[in-house]
Amino acid sequence: MKLVAKTIDLKIKGEDIILSEETATRLGVSSGDRVNLTSKGKTISTFIGVSSTLVEDDEVGVLGDIKEDLKINEKEEIEVRPSKKPKSVSSIKNKVLGNKFTKEDLKTLVNDVVNEKLTNSEIAAYLTAISINGMDLDETYWLTKSMVETGDQIDFEEFPIMDKHSIGGVPGNKISLLIVPIIAAAGLKIPKTSSRAITGAAGTADIMEVLAPVKFSAEQIHKITNEVGGTLAWGGATNIAPADDIFVRVEHPLSLDPRPQLLASVLSKKKAIGSDKIVIDIPTGDGTKVENKEEAKKLARDFIELGNRFEIEIESAITYGGTPIGHAIGPALEAQEGLMALEGKKEAPKSLLEKSCSVAGILLEMGDKADEEEGKKKAKKLLKNGKALEKFKEIIEVQGGDPQISSQDIELGAFRKKLVAPSSGYVTNVDNQGLIKIARTLGAPADKGAGLRLYKKEGDEVEEGEKILELFSEEKWKLKEAKKSIKKNFPLDVEGILLKRMPEFEDIQ
Amino acid sequence: MKLVAKTIDLKIKGEDIILSEETATRLGVSSGDRVNLTSKGKTISTFIGVSSTLVEDDEVGVLGDIKEDLKINEKEEIEVRPSKKPKSVSSIKNKVLGNKFTKEDLKTLVNDVVNEKLTNSEIAAYLTAISINGMDLDETYWLTKSMVETGDQIDFEEFPIMDKHSIGGVPGNKISLLIVPIIAAAGLKIPKTSSRAITGAAGTADIMEVLAPVKFSAEQIHKITNEVGGTLAWGGATNIAPADDIFVRVEHPLSLDPRPQLLASVLSKKKAIGSDKIVIDIPTGDGTKVENKEEAKKLARDFIELGNRFEIEIESAITYGGTPIGHAIGPALEAQEGLMALEGKKEAPKSLLEKSCSVAGILLEMGDKADEEEGKKKAKKLLKNGKALEKFKEIIEVQGGDPQISSQDIELGAFRKKLVAPSSGYVTNVDNQGLIKIARTLGAPADKGAGLRLYKKEGDEVEEGEKILELFSEEKWKLKEAKKSIKKNFPLDVEGILLKRMPEFEDIQ
Repeated sequence: MKLVAKTIDLKIKGEDIILSEETATRLGVSSGDRVNLTSKGKTISTFIGVSSTLVEDDEVGVLGDIKEDLKINEKEEIEVRPSKKPKSVSSIKNKVLGNKFTKEDLKTLVNDVVNEKLTNSEIAAYLTAISINGMDLDETYWLTKSMVETGDQIDFEEFPIMDKHSIGGVPGNKISLLIVPIIAAAGLKIPKTSSRAITGAAGTADIMEVLAPVKFSAEQIHKITNEVGGTLAWGGATNIAPADDIFVRVEHPLSLDPRPQLLASVLSKKKAIGSDKIVIDIPTGDGTKVENKEEAKKLARDFIELGNRFEIEIESAITYGGTPIGHAIGPALEAQEGLMALEGKKEAPKSLLEKSCSVAGILLEMGDKADEEEGKKKAKKLLKNGKALEKFKEIIEVQGGDPQISSQDIELGAFRKKLVAPSSGYVTNVDNQGLIKIARTLGAPADKGAGLRLYKKEGDEVEEGEKILELFSEEKWKLKEAKKSIKKNFPLDVEGILLKRMPEFEDIQ
Repeated sequence: MKLVAKTIDLKIKGEDIILSEETATRLGVSSGDRVNLTSKGKTISTFIGVSSTLVEDDEVGVLGDIKEDLKINEKEEIEVRPSKKPKSVSSIKNKVLGNKFTKEDLKTLVNDVVNEKLTNSEIAAYLTAISINGMDLDETYWLTKSMVETGDQIDFEEFPIMDKHSIGGVPGNKISLLIVPIIAAAGLKIPKTSSRAITGAAGTADIMEVLAPVKFSAEQIHKITNEVGGTLAWGGATNIAPADDIFVRVEHPLSLDPRPQLLASVLSKKKAIGSDKIVIDIPTGDGTKVENKEEAKKLARDFIELGNRFEIEIESAITYGGTPIGHAIGPALEAQEGLMALEGKKEAPKSLLEKSCSVAGILLEMGDKADEEEGKKKAKKLLKNGKALEKFKEIIEVQGGDPQISSQDIELGAFRKKLVAPSSGYVTNVDNQGLIKIARTLGAPADKGAGLRLYKKEGDEVEEGEKILELFSEEKWKLKEAKKSIKKNFPLDVEGILLKRMPEFEDIQ
């Protein structure tokens, strides 16, 4: 169909030209679809938006870069036609039919994803298809390899390069804040990248950002790691395995988490950053991603096998994730708690210290900095003697934060409430997802000071008048909303206390 | 996250508010994602677009209706948060896991689709999941029923109401142009709605539009049918089973065509329009949707069973679809050929007359207008005696077209070429998809006058100098492009002729 060009000074992500609804219907395309645009013999493939105010039926609105790319003049006649599907669409269809991807298929697919040639619907179809029909180790390897190759890669000069990854879903799992400085303090290199929270209350990147900037390029991560031994950066700011961010962005709203994609997601980032000795922390228990130990062991085996193909040594730590790690949930609260642990404060929760030192211990053994079975002890020592704290401050400084910061300086949400037990009893269950929901209602992770502290966990006794929960928010109405939500669904089961009769919250002094 | 409102006089389909890329990232959302917008205590769920020019990081661009819906003032502070997923997302996830949809699940899902509460990615996940895991008859029934109930329905006063549907994929399948007037001429009612071409060269709606307007509401279709017995309307302009248009819009770019969705698509429209006696034309053969007879029989049985649940009587006609029906492919060319057949012109292709009368014959028998085995003969009679042509002109007139039109008046693309056989041979194979591709390259279906005529089919002898193919286009460069494409991939296999040595095209006199 021939249309008159109308250039529009507007840039909308994922849409390069605008058609009227009538014109889109006539062309058989709709918002987000792919079309071919031909001007002066040059054709490009692009995506459309549909607007009822920007263009007339005989016009095509030309946005942003496209105008320059095709040197389009105002009022020029342009040919717009539905575009052929990229090759990946037929390989996705092939997976829907139950067939295996070839190496070439996955290379093309990942390339198309990174170059934004696939629509979200096409990526959703891919993720759904592999959720049902799976991928074998070959396919997972090819996928991972393509994800590595379509982004930046760091080439460290010396090995080993240590790394860790925790499978998400456990609130309060701020162990990287302790592990990275412990490992770096031991003289090993650990260029750790983390994600922001997507479904959670605080990702490691969200937490670290309370203390220092976290946006660095691969080159900067390389430099920082060489300089101080470790970093705590946000993976999303790098161009390391950029396909992963796109896959995650599509799979998350669909509540999909296909296993091969999880494996590729973790290992593509680690491979690209140059790590060759990695611990994977796999929390199991109610409400975690991996609900039982059998499944956790299978996942661990898959990680090890896939790691082998990349010459990466992997050990797995199957941990208990049915209850939060430490007390704090939310970016600033967790940054504070992590810092308290590094400072050796006696209020630092034992569960955080134990888990961090266990995982760090494995890494110390893998990196030959501790004898077998001695890693955890060594990790504890590096915590106790202040070396880890010192290293952490170096990392904060080199990342551009204030190394003088102490746990007491951290600002928490000003609107607070606490909840005390109206009578005695003991905790029989903790609802992780419920806690995350409360923290998010309070404003986490976007409001850094928002979140909660949980003082009682499964098996703990609760005495009348004892503190159970503290809420923090940056805005009054969010605190109110969270209180309402808690009254409806209390995230703890406490035997002996009628939670429906829970008294009003108290202000925190 | 709290943002300052900036109202923007712009309406983009599927996007109600605009965030900067940085803000979207901080919120953990991207283009097309769902967010909650809270202003003055009122919260609505909506979708975001991402722009690098329209808004600053602390702003939220408020488009079109949202501004009025929430009575948002310029510079007002608005809370924007990632939104909870609608319930349908968890039922789709459930289907991914291999479970069955409940009646309630499908009702909610179809409602969410019609009310635009689901993103294209979510609909894509649904379509992919049912492509792999299927749906049983219960589920298909619930789906169909929900699709009927979420749109307009026609309640005819008298029965039977006849209808037909052809499973697509066969080029030139213009039989509805003959069947509708034949059935209406016999005194039966047939409120036929059709689609536009999506992957094809011309849908019945595209073809009929050459002769008369095709956009009518359900009420208008009801009225037209009561007035003249039949209509040839575009289903997409009605609000009949509107969910179907959305499903088709998403499944088409994915090359998906899940069987339960096909069943529901056809029968929801027929049920809503009030039809109770239907013939389903199921073409089989190379390149059709249903490649073999066994599969066609299974599909026919599924249609009959599903029809039973709605008290719709269904007969199926399993036809040969390996080669085009008639010669003409493309809207105006097909309108001309259909009209020629109704006019009784001797050039009217036999394949078109035979297929149309066979299917019309079944309908005449079902509607008690012909004795068993006599339907086809009766159909032919109504064609020969001019009653069908007379009825067709009535339909054209009542739809707002010119009833005086004859096949010779129809305007075809002005840029033409023909191809003659360089030596003798015979046709061993016709590539339907190849023909459709050529017609689309020539400009069909958007350019009404574009398309082709194919004079030789499987089994036909070709003599030296005989006409094989004629091309029509409204634009010179499209003709040139089509010629190039034909030289690369000739859509016929002709034994005895070296097609690679095919001589240049000739101008059509």
